[in-house]
Amino acid sequence: MRLAESLASALGADAVITDADVTSGYQHDMMPLAPFGTPLAVVFPSDTSEVQTVVRLCAEAGVPIVPRGAGSGLSGAANAIDGCVVVAMTRMKEILEIDPDNRLAVVQPGVVNLEFRGAVEKHGLFYPPDPSSYDWCTIGGNVSTNAGGLCCVKYGVTTDSVLGLEVVLASGEVLRTGRRTVKGVAGYDLTKLFIGSEGTLGVITEITVALRPLPQVPGTTIAAFPTTEAAGAAVSRIVREGLVPSLMEIMDATSIQAVEAYLKTELGAGQGCAALLLCQSDAGGAAARHELEIIEQVCQAEGADLAYTTHDLAEGQMLLQARRAVLTALEVYGTWLTDDVCVPRTRIAELISGCERISAEVGLRIAVVGHAGDGNMHPTIVYDASSADEFARARKAFDDILEVGLSLGGTITGEHGVGRIKREWLAREIGPVGMKVHRAIKSALDPANLFNPGSMF
Amino acid sequence: MRLAESLASALGADAVITDADVTSGYQHDMMPLAPFGTPLAVVFPSDTSEVQTVVRLCAEAGVPIVPRGAGSGLSGAANAIDGCVVVAMTRMKEILEIDPDNRLAVVQPGVVNLEFRGAVEKHGLFYPPDPSSYDWCTIGGNVSTNAGGLCCVKYGVTTDSVLGLEVVLASGEVLRTGRRTVKGVAGYDLTKLFIGSEGTLGVITEITVALRPLPQVPGTTIAAFPTTEAAGAAVSRIVREGLVPSLMEIMDATSIQAVEAYLKTELGAGQGCAALLLCQSDAGGAAARHELEIIEQVCQAEGADLAYTTHDLAEGQMLLQARRAVLTALEVYGTWLTDDVCVPRTRIAELISGCERISAEVGLRIAVVGHAGDGNMHPTIVYDASSADEFARARKAFDDILEVGLSLGGTITGEHGVGRIKREWLAREIGPVGMKVHRAIKSALDPANLFNPGSMF
Repeated sequence: MRLAESLASALGADAVITDADVTSGYQHDMMPLAPFGTPLAVVFPSDTSEVQTVVRLCAEAGVPIVPRGAGSGLSGAANAIDGCVVVAMTRMKEILEIDPDNRLAVVQPGVVNLEFRGAVEKHGLFYPPDPSSYDWCTIGGNVSTNAGGLCCVKYGVTTDSVLGLEVVLASGEVLRTGRRTVKGVAGYDLTKLFIGSEGTLGVITEITVALRPLPQVPGTTIAAFPTTEAAGAAVSRIVREGLVPSLMEIMDATSIQAVEAYLKTELGAGQGCAALLLCQSDAGGAAARHELEIIEQVCQAEGADLAYTTHDLAEGQMLLQARRAVLTALEVYGTWLTDDVCVPRTRIAELISGCERISAEVGLRIAVVGHAGDGNMHPTIVYDASSADEFARARKAFDDILEVGLSLGGTITGEHGVGRIKREWLAREIGPVGMKVHRAIKSALDPANLFNPGSMF
Repeated sequence: MRLAESLASALGADAVITDADVTSGYQHDMMPLAPFGTPLAVVFPSDTSEVQTVVRLCAEAGVPIVPRGAGSGLSGAANAIDGCVVVAMTRMKEILEIDPDNRLAVVQPGVVNLEFRGAVEKHGLFYPPDPSSYDWCTIGGNVSTNAGGLCCVKYGVTTDSVLGLEVVLASGEVLRTGRRTVKGVAGYDLTKLFIGSEGTLGVITEITVALRPLPQVPGTTIAAFPTTEAAGAAVSRIVREGLVPSLMEIMDATSIQAVEAYLKTELGAGQGCAALLLCQSDAGGAAARHELEIIEQVCQAEGADLAYTTHDLAEGQMLLQARRAVLTALEVYGTWLTDDVCVPRTRIAELISGCERISAEVGLRIAVVGHAGDGNMHPTIVYDASSADEFARARKAFDDILEVGLSLGGTITGEHGVGRIKREWLAREIGPVGMKVHRAIKSALDPANLFNPGSMF
């Protein structure tokens, strides 16, 4: 317990928790497949210098560090390992600066995504990254995992919104990366190296983000297709027509049925609907009307049974609510396990039919929802958590989906990350040379393997 | 000469040049301040496996490699060092694939930017990065330097358009980074680590880029201001109003006068014009009209003596031509030396007045042109290349401009890179911890310092 005492004496007793009843709440994120251990302590630093102290004390003691935000992750990257110190960044939650004239903000990592969005909105500004957990996940966690969301089809992922970072390295030194200017090429792009590094290279203590003007109120188009192939063809054609909707989501039949049952409403999909496509345009005025008109025409031309557009915000939000409710709706049938693959946009229908095949093989419900505009799909497996057999089948389905994703020219993770569940798959995707380069960088920056050992690779 | 013979025997005699009369054409890029040496040989590999052979032979012989595209760079990053092998990538110039349905393309590094733009335009697609040298620079060089251009205010820099790379490492192994999908977070973002690494980490042999839909024909607004402060205030206000023009360039009085004399035309700026602001909107139709209308109003409100908008393409191109002609126009007065600093967008006027002060101090003409929408300014010093004294004063002005840029919260390079001319400045900007991390990464990936030694840091 000597380390815990040193930590408590440096950070204050209220910033260091060793009581197993409490630390158990910090053992894992939201991914049921990932292994986790029991931490020696959970610490809550209040500033960068306290993070430096924690890193130095842990390094001296040879105790690994697992950095953590809110714990909303879906890869186990924030999971504790036995005897580690979990560094929870949730007390460092200040919005340090919002600069509307330069469209940037500086935040501490613990600020909640939704809270930050609201704060910049007051200045007419927009922070695009909007992972599903946006009402409780932290910006620091988003940066560590390079989180995405529904915005990505038009506005990119987290890395596209970050200008610079402050990071505490394994040596305890503070590294500042990037800049406050829009452009800059002074040296290697260390900012983007740390983004998505899942806590394996350092502890992020400050983030400078670029903001955008607040978009116009979106219009919404919903289209129902008799086959997933028709929906997939519509996605390809929308891309080929040169349209850039601000949102383009897909739900398969299983998702639709679950949501209709849960919300006790008809989505207008009707019998025989195999897929819904939900698009928004935030281009505003005539541009949005024009964009959604073409999308509606494309959907009809590709065989949609129904295509409907509204420019009423409340109605649009209600339609979007159906998409957002899928995971909750699936809980009626059991525990959900959501996968994350990204395929070329032309291969979405093949991925969905692959999931149908896997569902039949393992005998479990698999609902496919996803960001059609990016090809980033979240096939979600439903199983009975009390049944070891169902759990094993769910795990098999999870891997089989990755197999299909790779075979379609895709990647094993579009936005959730590798963490503790896709390590072997990472090696498969990037190959031995890629792994060698990863290890070389990791050992150059963290030679003692202090940060999040065993995660990612 | 043993290495040159091995290279010739492996690549063919026509792919290896040792004749000093010819190799002298490959000794340096377009930056007059950067030192350069005499290469042992210049080689022209035709494919990735030939690049591997070159790297392995050079590594065995302990001979450094300087990778090179067209040589249009402005930092000396492609400059030969004595006894090195210059690897010119200009023979690897195939466009391997254009995939309109997935909005991506795969190219070899030697393809010329303009040629590639033209090829994708035929598919209704757009490759944004447009450095000034776009009619002769290569995509590989653009990737190595993370090049920008006039597009950046709306579409970002090269790194924002690259999905994946193939790179030959110091070991001779081939690394593939990134992916063909829109999103992906499998492992560290090695793609963006290599982008902008200025040939210090490997030789880039293939590039997968994301494309955008071809924008609408742009409308153009030009505004003339009586003071640089008024022009700077207009830029800040355009940003704050939430506008995203597709181009926003600034020219100071010295640039305007040079161009007017060179083109023998009036830009409408008139006597007492201190700065011209040139904006475009490619939003199309009513959206573009609306955007440029507000820009015009903002310019007038901030004191512009003239603000004029045209939606005629030819007229817009003519106005843009004035901006593009600045460097050529300056050649009438001597040799130009263009600097590259990026400051917060609110500090542009201060940078310009800093350049006026430096111009008076060193007694040389300094014309400031730049990408106002990004704060990325190119103060361009004009000197007599035959005068050692003027060269020394030009060099001093070059450094003094960086000093001003840093003091305004900017960076020492917005898009040209560090190369052989800003090494000391890199250390000043990123500090000792940043330098340590750079060296750690460099030595992890290139332990023998084979690639471009002495460049960047």
